Amino acid sequence: MKIITLTTDFGVGDFEIGTLYGVIWSLAPQARVIDFTHGVMRHNIMQASLNLGAYTPYFPEGSIHVAVVDPGVGTTRRPIAAALGDQFFVGPDNGLLTEMRRHAQNAGKTVQIVHLDRPQFWLPKVSNVFHGRDIFSPAAAHLANGIPLIELGTLIEDPVLLDLPQPRRAGSSLHGQIILVDHFGNLGTNIEREHLMGMGKVQVRVGGVLIDSLVKTFGECLPGDLIALISGSNHLAISVVNGSAAQRLQVKTGDPVEVLAAE
Amino acid sequence: MKIITLTTDFGVGDFEIGTLYGVIWSLAPQARVIDFTHGVMRHNIMQASLNLGAYTPYFPEGSIHVAVVDPGVGTTRRPIAAALGDQFFVGPDNGLLTEMRRHAQNAGKTVQIVHLDRPQFWLPKVSNVFHGRDIFSPAAAHLANGIPLIELGTLIEDPVLLDLPQPRRAGSSLHGQIILVDHFGNLGTNIEREHLMGMGKVQVRVGGVLIDSLVKTFGECLPGDLIALISGSNHLAISVVNGSAAQRLQVKTGDPVEVLAAE
Amino acid sequence: MKIITLTTDFGVGDFEIGTLYGVIWSLAPQARVIDFTHGVMRHNIMQASLNLGAYTPYFPEGSIHVAVVDPGVGTTRRPIAAALGDQFFVGPDNGLLTEMRRHAQNAGKTVQIVHLDRPQFWLPKVSNVFHGRDIFSPAAAHLANGIPLIELGTLIEDPVLLDLPQPRRAGSSLHGQIILVDHFGNLGTNIEREHLMGMGKVQVRVGGVLIDSLVKTFGECLPGDLIALISGSNHLAISVVNGSAAQRLQVKTGDPVEVLAAE
Repeated sequence: MKIITLTTDFGVGDFEIGTLYGVIWSLAPQARVIDFTHGVMRHNIMQASLNLGAYTPYFPEGSIHVAVVDPGVGTTRRPIAAALGDQFFVGPDNGLLTEMRRHAQNAGKTVQIVHLDRPQFWLPKVSNVFHGRDIFSPAAAHLANGIPLIELGTLIEDPVLLDLPQPRRAGSSLHGQIILVDHFGNLGTNIEREHLMGMGKVQVRVGGVLIDSLVKTFGECLPGDLIALISGSNHLAISVVNGSAAQRLQVKTGDPVEVLAAE
Repeated sequence: MKIITLTTDFGVGDFEIGTLYGVIWSLAPQARVIDFTHGVMRHNIMQASLNLGAYTPYFPEGSIHVAVVDPGVGTTRRPIAAALGDQFFVGPDNGLLTEMRRHAQNAGKTVQIVHLDRPQFWLPKVSNVFHGRDIFSPAAAHLANGIPLIELGTLIEDPVLLDLPQPRRAGSSLHGQIILVDHFGNLGTNIEREHLMGMGKVQVRVGGVLIDSLVKTFGECLPGDLIALISGSNHLAISVVNGSAAQRLQVKTGDPVEVLAAE
Repeated sequence: MKIITLTTDFGVGDFEIGTLYGVIWSLAPQARVIDFTHGVMRHNIMQASLNLGAYTPYFPEGSIHVAVVDPGVGTTRRPIAAALGDQFFVGPDNGLLTEMRRHAQNAGKTVQIVHLDRPQFWLPKVSNVFHGRDIFSPAAAHLANGIPLIELGTLIEDPVLLDLPQPRRAGSSLHGQIILVDHFGNLGTNIEREHLMGMGKVQVRVGGVLIDSLVKTFGECLPGDLIALISGSNHLAISVVNGSAAQRLQVKTGDPVEVLAAE
């Protein structure tokens, strides 16, 4: 029984999400379908790519992840599907698979990507504005039915990849940036737990403020405290307990974050 | 394995949705239940009816669509269920089935509607405010279990139907209206693809603005462009790329939209 | 086939919810997982406890209810699981199970609670900030797989319980309070249907206003009417038809509500 997850920027106000289920179950009645998230910020491909990279490892082998954050729908951007490690990706060729692909590659596992260019695997009518329904859901259903990836399209070697910023060392400090603001106003950064190995006690500078140390968890602190900690996805995060760090610091994605060795 | 979809105006803040699943699975453990949408605008029966009409055709034969947009709950409005083409509808008798019924009728398919007036198919206690839980979910579960529609209630021939506005031709132009505003601020109209057949190149007048032509998709345009296009549900739609047409034009449901032959 | 429900304050903007499904299905591929609600107000343990108490009785025997409203994650607060009547609870030991436990106890049914202190039933790596993924979802999956509650941890007798306010009688009137504000602005109170038995016709005083009587349902009234009625969960509720009572009356959780015998 195959799992198909959906990651979109559709929000929850409309009908599109249910429609994807209908199409998938028409073609693959046995598939399990779940909403990974429909709360990706509109057209925020990086956010979706990071989420997919961080959380798909928790899914069973062979799970199929459909991502529809697709500002280029109906243009010449390619629809693609991929085997990345032991998981599948289906979506537009706009960088969404970047992090899943990087993890697979770093682990020396499968990276196989096809251009979904075979109309026999699409819905009979394809609109210019809703490939999630007309191309991606059917592709996911066919994968769930056991059709090999390679039959769904033509192999490609040049997927569009995001240029994900990497933190940079300068002397004893580490220069990164905010890459995500979640719906609580927590700030995610491109600095990962492993980047901090060997730095000992650290301070964090962000939005003109110096945070004195890392805490282990929210519950150690008081409401309103501005804190830095390692998030559930192993990234350095900055939060206000019971509040919004984004609002407090007036910062946004792309703004700098500096980690300094504490004196 | 039967599919039951849920279409409501409950939003996502509360507990009602999960409760429907609990009731359904208590009675029909094998049913597959999915959220079609809970984002119908409050008490917006027309929006729900249009969504059901546009998207239920993508569901497998025999799927059961529960709709709870129910301002009259607990009054004399009837609870009903219906076989409409190869799909089922369950909900209040307030016009929600209008579009599903119209499509079935136009296709010469089954239209059979019953008043859910047999308490043995309800929950033992029926509240005055939550028939979604107490009457509609049980009815859907019984249909999923294979109980014939006709056993659940008494046949009726006079369901409440919405008076859906049809576009009107005047000379070489077509006068329609805005019938939906989605959560991105896109405007849906009552003008469908087929109404435009034979008109050649067209312009669209809406909110005091003239849009020069139809585009195929968002991706052809620049952020901030005001565009007209055919939506995924085959209706003429007006959008602002990466923005809100409703906000830009200060228009709302019911406002006029005119399609003119371009010169 | 066991049902696992999820009750959280995660909202819908992020990735955490899908991750719980992934973890559960990795361990218990046959489990049915549904979202009960992710719209609990942030860190509002009482709201979550009330919802669980009111709506878990509609679920099939043996259903497993995971609740993650967890301001103390990563501190010394205990992770727990419990058999309460014929349902299971899994979550932090912060009072979330209060209402489910009270109902079970009042009905003379099972109340058995364990501290989830056995790492062999957790994910291999446990973060300080996401026990929903690392401890609670695995515990729910193990219960769904048939592992007895008592094997997952050590029995405890001292769970944290909320001090839920009870309404108080004074002469012929009843003094209660607002305990919930839902996303429509409806006000839930701690006065239940049974508290009103024998009071005959009543009036309701709230936010400086006197409501003349109880109505049966919204549909009897006009848009804008301020009404009092018995809700789907059998509590006295105050609403504005098609509007927000919270906004109209400028009241909030904890504010007093008085029921008076009508003259």
